[in-house]
Amino acid sequence: MGFNYLTNVPLEQAKRDYRDLLLSNGFAGKTETVAVQESCGRITAEAVYANINAPHYAASAMDGVALRAKDSFGATETTPVTLTEKQFVVVDTGDPVPEGCDAVIMVEDIVKNADGSVTIHSPAAPWQHIRQIGEDVCAGEMILPGYMEVTPAAIGAMIAGGVMELTVVRRPVVGIIPTGDEIVPPCASPKPGDILEFNSSIFSSMLDSWGACHKTYPIVPDDFDAIRDMTAKAAAECDMVILNAGSSAGREDFSASVMQELGQVLYHGIAIKPGKPAILGCVGAVPLLGVPGYPVSGIIVVEELLRPLVDLWFGRDTSGRSRARAKLTRPVVSGLKYQEYVRVRMGYVGDRLMAAPRPRGSGVVSSFMKADGILEVPQGTEGYQAGDEVRVRLLNSKKKLKNTLVIIGSHDPLLDELADMIHSENHGMYVSSSHVGSMGGIMAVRRGEAHAAGIHLLDTETGEYNKSYIRKYFPHGGVYLVRCVGRQQGLILPRGNPLKLKCFADVSRDGIRYVNRQKGSGTRILMDYLCRRDGVDPSAVYGYEREELTHNSVAVQIASGSADVGMGIYSAAKLYDLDFLPMCTEEYDLLIPETVWSSSMMQQLISTLKSDAFRTRIQAMGGYTLDHPGEIISVF
Amino acid sequence: MGFNYLTNVPLEQAKRDYRDLLLSNGFAGKTETVAVQESCGRITAEAVYANINAPHYAASAMDGVALRAKDSFGATETTPVTLTEKQFVVVDTGDPVPEGCDAVIMVEDIVKNADGSVTIHSPAAPWQHIRQIGEDVCAGEMILPGYMEVTPAAIGAMIAGGVMELTVVRRPVVGIIPTGDEIVPPCASPKPGDILEFNSSIFSSMLDSWGACHKTYPIVPDDFDAIRDMTAKAAAECDMVILNAGSSAGREDFSASVMQELGQVLYHGIAIKPGKPAILGCVGAVPLLGVPGYPVSGIIVVEELLRPLVDLWFGRDTSGRSRARAKLTRPVVSGLKYQEYVRVRMGYVGDRLMAAPRPRGSGVVSSFMKADGILEVPQGTEGYQAGDEVRVRLLNSKKKLKNTLVIIGSHDPLLDELADMIHSENHGMYVSSSHVGSMGGIMAVRRGEAHAAGIHLLDTETGEYNKSYIRKYFPHGGVYLVRCVGRQQGLILPRGNPLKLKCFADVSRDGIRYVNRQKGSGTRILMDYLCRRDGVDPSAVYGYEREELTHNSVAVQIASGSADVGMGIYSAAKLYDLDFLPMCTEEYDLLIPETVWSSSMMQQLISTLKSDAFRTRIQAMGGYTLDHPGEIISVF
Repeated sequence: MGFNYLTNVPLEQAKRDYRDLLLSNGFAGKTETVAVQESCGRITAEAVYANINAPHYAASAMDGVALRAKDSFGATETTPVTLTEKQFVVVDTGDPVPEGCDAVIMVEDIVKNADGSVTIHSPAAPWQHIRQIGEDVCAGEMILPGYMEVTPAAIGAMIAGGVMELTVVRRPVVGIIPTGDEIVPPCASPKPGDILEFNSSIFSSMLDSWGACHKTYPIVPDDFDAIRDMTAKAAAECDMVILNAGSSAGREDFSASVMQELGQVLYHGIAIKPGKPAILGCVGAVPLLGVPGYPVSGIIVVEELLRPLVDLWFGRDTSGRSRARAKLTRPVVSGLKYQEYVRVRMGYVGDRLMAAPRPRGSGVVSSFMKADGILEVPQGTEGYQAGDEVRVRLLNSKKKLKNTLVIIGSHDPLLDELADMIHSENHGMYVSSSHVGSMGGIMAVRRGEAHAAGIHLLDTETGEYNKSYIRKYFPHGGVYLVRCVGRQQGLILPRGNPLKLKCFADVSRDGIRYVNRQKGSGTRILMDYLCRRDGVDPSAVYGYEREELTHNSVAVQIASGSADVGMGIYSAAKLYDLDFLPMCTEEYDLLIPETVWSSSMMQQLISTLKSDAFRTRIQAMGGYTLDHPGEIISVF
Repeated sequence: MGFNYLTNVPLEQAKRDYRDLLLSNGFAGKTETVAVQESCGRITAEAVYANINAPHYAASAMDGVALRAKDSFGATETTPVTLTEKQFVVVDTGDPVPEGCDAVIMVEDIVKNADGSVTIHSPAAPWQHIRQIGEDVCAGEMILPGYMEVTPAAIGAMIAGGVMELTVVRRPVVGIIPTGDEIVPPCASPKPGDILEFNSSIFSSMLDSWGACHKTYPIVPDDFDAIRDMTAKAAAECDMVILNAGSSAGREDFSASVMQELGQVLYHGIAIKPGKPAILGCVGAVPLLGVPGYPVSGIIVVEELLRPLVDLWFGRDTSGRSRARAKLTRPVVSGLKYQEYVRVRMGYVGDRLMAAPRPRGSGVVSSFMKADGILEVPQGTEGYQAGDEVRVRLLNSKKKLKNTLVIIGSHDPLLDELADMIHSENHGMYVSSSHVGSMGGIMAVRRGEAHAAGIHLLDTETGEYNKSYIRKYFPHGGVYLVRCVGRQQGLILPRGNPLKLKCFADVSRDGIRYVNRQKGSGTRILMDYLCRRDGVDPSAVYGYEREELTHNSVAVQIASGSADVGMGIYSAAKLYDLDFLPMCTEEYDLLIPETVWSSSMMQQLISTLKSDAFRTRIQAMGGYTLDHPGEIISVF
C-alpha cells in the first residue's frame, strides 16, 4: 500500500507535517456575518471600524441652559450679564446642544428673572459642560483588530459606533463517525458483548468547549464500503472528520484503507502512548483523523492532533496550556519508543504539589475523569523516579488543587459520601480519594503525600486494629488516629447462598470460586489471618490469586456469577443485594498527620464526621457502627 | 419612604446583607433533568451514581481461546496439555467470556492440532487476560459528587455506567429591562438626542459567559406605571431582574419607587464609583437590581452585585478572580467616600508589569473595552502615587499581557493598522497603544513604561524633528529613534471651505471657531509655533481652549459643524471627506528603548514597518510619505 503503515512518527513532526499538508491543500478558517448582539466570544475575521460617532451629537453634560459662550464673556460678580430668552435654551443632561449654542451653564449658577431672562455672574468657556461628538468612538476608527475575541464591552462599543453586524470566523463543523460491529448506542441495559458508544459524546463535548460544532453520524458496522460511503459523505458535509475506532492494524480495521481510497494517508501510527494507532489523513483540505477506540487513547489523540487544527482554523494561539511542577509520588516507567501520557492525581500537601500516577489502562475512562493532570514522558526517556520533580499539564486549576483534601489508602464507599457532603456544603472545597489499600495509605502519609489515609489493619497477635501499625511506622508520632466507623467484614455470597457456605473454611471447598483483594489491603490481611486461624491452605483456595481493588468490585464478581465468594464489607453485599456471612467487626479509622491537623479543610472533615447528617447517610448504607466518629484515639 | 434613599453602604456589607435577605426569602438554584450528552459544563445538582457495571460483562482482553483454567493446570514445556474442542472456545478481544470459562490463553501460546484440539505448554491462571466486570465503574458507585462541573470524560464515565440523564442546576433566567425616554434600539443612523440602547447587549453577553440565560424586555419609557408593570411581569417570568437606568435620584427616576411598591428596597446607593446609584431590591426570592445607565457604571454594578447571585444560584465558588501586582504609571486620586474602580491598561516592559490608569469617564464604553485590568481603590484610601505597586484584577491573561507590545505617545491611526497587521499575522502577539501626546510618550519611555512611543516634535529653533528632544531627555542615550512616516499637517476645514480660509493666520479671524489639541501633543506645539511665526495671538483664536485628544476627534468636530477649523493630519481630513490646507510635512517616528530592541516582538514590529503590505495600507490612508520606515535614525 502507498502509505506508511503503522509508522512511529514523533508527535511534533506528525503535527507539523499534518499542518503543512493541510495548509498546502487549502485548509483555512471560513468566515460568516453575525449580528453584533450574537458575536460575544466569537473571533473577528477582519478589523471592525466604527460607522458613526459616539456620542453622535453634542450633548449637554448638565441640567442648565445652553448659550453662545460669547454672550457670557465679561460676566463677573460685580458686572453680571443678563441673557434674554432669545439668548439661551433650557437643557437637561443628554439633550442635544441647540443650533448656535456652544456652552452650557449649570442651573445652580443661574439666577432666573421674572421677565424670563437669566442672569449669570461668571463667563462660560466655549464647550464647557458639553459632551463632544465622538468622545467615545469616532466614525472610521478601528474598534477591534482582526482575529480578536469579542468581549461584552466590545459589543457595546460596536453598537455605539453604529456597527450592527460583523464578520467572524465561522465555527468549524467536525463530523464524528463511530464504527464497529460491537458498538451500540448508549442505553441503560446493554447485552453481553455490546460496547456502549460514548466516545462520540466525549469528543463532541470537547469540540463544543473549543468553540467548534459537532455532527455525529450513525454507527457504521465493520464493512469497508459502508465506512467509505459514510466517510465520503462526512468529508463533503464537514470541515474536519473524526473516524473513530478501527484505527489499529487488526483484521477489521478499514479506516486507513478507506482514507487512502478517498484521499490520502500521511501517517498511520504516532509515537505516543496511549494513542499510537492514530491515522492522519485528509480529503483535500478536509482533515480525516483516525482515532483509536479506547476512550483514553481517543481523548489524547483528539486533544493532541485535532485541537491544533481547530485552533489553526480560528487563528488562535495554540500554546495556551497551564502547567505546573509537581513531586512524583511513585516511579513512572516508560518505553523509549513513545511519548507517554500518564494521568496523575494531584494535590497540595503543605505547600508541595504532589502528582500520583493513576492506573494506565486506556479503556478506563473513569480514571481519566479522576485525573487532575497529565504527565508527558518524552520519547526517549525511560521514566522518572519517585520524588522526582516533574512538569505536569493541569486539567484542574491550581486553586482547585489547593482546596482539595487528598485521602489515600483503604477503600470504603463512605469516602465518596464524605466527598459529596463536604463539597455540597462547601463549594470551594474538594475531596480526592485514591484506593491503594491500608498499607499504601500508611506509606503515603509517611511520605507526606496525603492529608489523610483510611486504614483498617488487624494486629493478628493482639486482635487490635491500627494502633500497633502506627506505633511501628510512626515511632516518633507526628500523626493522629481518628475514629471513623466500625464495619462488618465477612464473606459475600450469591443471594440465597446456593452453595451453602457455613463458615470461613468453606472457601477452600472444592468447586468454590473465591475472589480476593490486592496485597497490602486490610481485607487481604484479614483473609490471610482467617486462613491461619482456621487452618485453611491458601493454595487450596481456587481464585486466591484473583485480585480486585475494591469491596464493590469483589461484590460485582459474585453478583455477576463470575465468582462464588469473596471477603468484603456488608455495605457492598447490600448494594448488590447479596448474602453475607459475618466474620468480624473491624475498626476503619483515619490516619492524619499533625502538620495538616489545624487546616480549615481538615477541621471541615472532622466536623462532617461528627455531624448527624453523616451518621444518617452511613447508617443507610448498612453494616456500619458509629462510635464517636471524629474523635482522636490515643495510640502512643 | 421606607427605604434608605441614596445610602452609601460599603460594597461588602451590601453584598452580604443582599445575599442574606434573598436567602431568607427562599432564593436558591433550581434544578432540571438533562440528557447526559447535553450535560457538559453543567453543574450536578446531586451526586450521580452508576446504574450498571462497566464493562458490564467479562470480556476477553486478547485474541485467543477461552477455557476453564483448571483444565490447563499442570501444563509445562515437557508435559503439555491438550484441550478437546469441548474444552475451549475461540474468542477475539472484547468478546464475552463464554459460560463456564474463567481464563483466556493468547493465540500465540497455542498449538492448533489437525483434529481441532489445541495444545498448551503452560497453565492459565484463573481470570488471566480477562477484563473483569466493573473494572471501570461498579454499579452503585458514585461517579460524580453534587455541585461539580461535568467534564467530557465524566460524560463518558456516566454513559459507561448506564446513566442516561442527570439532574443539574438549571441556568437562571435573568430579565433585562431597559428604560428611558431617550433610549432607542440599536440602529445605524440615530437622530440627535437618541441614545442607542446597548447596555442590555453588554449585560446579556456577560450573563451568557456566566452560564445564565437572559431575557431582554422592550424599552420602557420614563413612566411609573409602565415601568412597574414591566418589572412585575419580569419578576414573575425570571429568576433575577436587571432594571437598567433610572437608578440615580433625578426627577424621572422611578426604579426605586417601583421596586418599593412591588417588593422591597434594601439599599439605594452603594459606596462604589462608578456605580454608586445602584439599587438592591427584590420581590420575594427574585432579586431586582437597579443598574445605572452609564455603560461603565452598569458593567461594574452587574459584575459586583449580580454575578455573586449567579454564582450563589449555581453553588459555585465565587472568589475565582485572577489578580496580579503591577507598578502604577501615573498617580490615582480617589475619594475617601467610595471604593473606586479604575480601568488600567497593562503590559510587561522587561519583567515589570505596568498598569496605566485610563480616563475615568463612565460613559466611555470603548475605554472599558481597551482596559486590561481593574484597579480597586478601597474605600477610605486617597489613592496611589505613580510608581506604587498595586494589586490589579486582570481582565486579560498574564500570557496575553506578556505578548503585548505597549506603545504610548502621540496618536496616529496608523498605529491601529499596525496592530491589526501584526496580530493578524501573529495571533500570539498583541499591540496596545495609548494616546498621551508626543511628550507623554517620551516620559513613558524614560520611566520604562513603554516598548515604544510615537513622537513628532518640532524643534522651533532648528525646524528639525524629534532629535533635539531625544538629546535633551536622553542625554546618556539608551534609546533608538526609528523612522516611521512623514505626514502632512495642516488646517482641517469643512468641505468646500465655505469660510474661505486662505492661510494659517485666518484661524483668528472673527467668527471662526477653532478646535485645538491637548497640551503636550506635537500638534499643539506645531499650532503654537505657527502662531508665533505668523504673529497670531492665541487669545484671539476663538476655541483655543477647546481641546480634543486625537486627529480624528478634531476632524469630527469640523465634519459635524461644531467647529470651523482645526489643526490635524491629512488622513483625518480624508477620512471624513473634509478640505485640507497643508501647513507642513512632519516626521512621525518611533522612540524605542535599547533594552527591548532585540525582543522578538520589537523585531516583528520593525519588519512589519519595512513590509510592502504596510506601505500599501498607509498610502491608501493618504497624506503619508514613506522613506525607509523601520530604519534607525542617528541622533547622538
